[in-house]
Amino acid sequence: MNRPETDPTIRDGERAVALPAATDAGVYFIGRIHTPYTDRSECPRQGRADGPECEIEVFEPWAAALEGIENAPRIEVLYWLHEARRDLVAQVPRHHGERRGTFALRSPVRPNPIGTLVVPLVAVRGNRLIVRGLDCLDGTPLIDIKPERCAFGPAPANQP
Amino acid sequence: MNRPETDPTIRDGERAVALPAATDAGVYFIGRIHTPYTDRSECPRQGRADGPECEIEVFEPWAAALEGIENAPRIEVLYWLHEARRDLVAQVPRHHGERRGTFALRSPVRPNPIGTLVVPLVAVRGNRLIVRGLDCLDGTPLIDIKPERCAFGPAPANQP
Repeated sequence: MNRPETDPTIRDGERAVALPAATDAGVYFIGRIHTPYTDRSECPRQGRADGPECEIEVFEPWAAALEGIENAPRIEVLYWLHEARRDLVAQVPRHHGERRGTFALRSPVRPNPIGTLVVPLVAVRGNRLIVRGLDCLDGTPLIDIKPERCAFGPAPANQP
Repeated sequence: MNRPETDPTIRDGERAVALPAATDAGVYFIGRIHTPYTDRSECPRQGRADGPECEIEVFEPWAAALEGIENAPRIEVLYWLHEARRDLVAQVPRHHGERRGTFALRSPVRPNPIGTLVVPLVAVRGNRLIVRGLDCLDGTPLIDIKPERCAFGPAPANQP
């Protein structure tokens, strides 16, 4: 349903729907992301490979799953955009002012508020990964880490 | 904890942990993916930009969120790997036989079984997107669609 135009939480042209009564599957927060951004207004609109160093902390019992990650020059990070609303199907981004469907945007506002980004892996320190250029809030829950796709494959002969 | 080596569901060298008692957030299944693969053994190990056509069906109330998606030459698709176990922190992939941490692999088996892939968008037909080269099972639940991020996002499916 459309919310009244007077709803102060959505912009003119945006459209909200009623969320389903229940979710269909559950995610574990497997870690926490540390960035320099403590307010959403400070977050860059996209990550940058030359951005500031950020730290990905992996909780137990998942730290053992980092074995071998040091061989990946870049990793894909999935995170839960915990402050984003989930009910908008059309949005009017502030930076260009044109209405777009949510799936035509990379806005954090989406039915499943999951961010994805490929970032350079700078260092591994125990259960913490140092990466560069994440775009999310400090304290954002981590939900997955994968090696970048093009790095996937049998290890070179000189790898342990 | 390590499962006994005699657990027939894990390979030698693999390691399972006890899953947390509860999940931390819920996802909505917002659609369904149609591919030629009806058994996990048929799924390609990676998607390919020159793979077969596949169809992404978007459920209500989310179809309106596709507005403008036709302008994206390639889209990122997130899906829930509903048949994958979630408790392995170390795995021994069949295709190379070496033990790796789960986060150093793109295996479907992971604490949050979410697949990500960037695929070419071939056509939009109402609430259905025709794309090329997905790697998941027929019937896989859809959880998100995003336009490809220029130059800084998950890597695309292998180019032909």
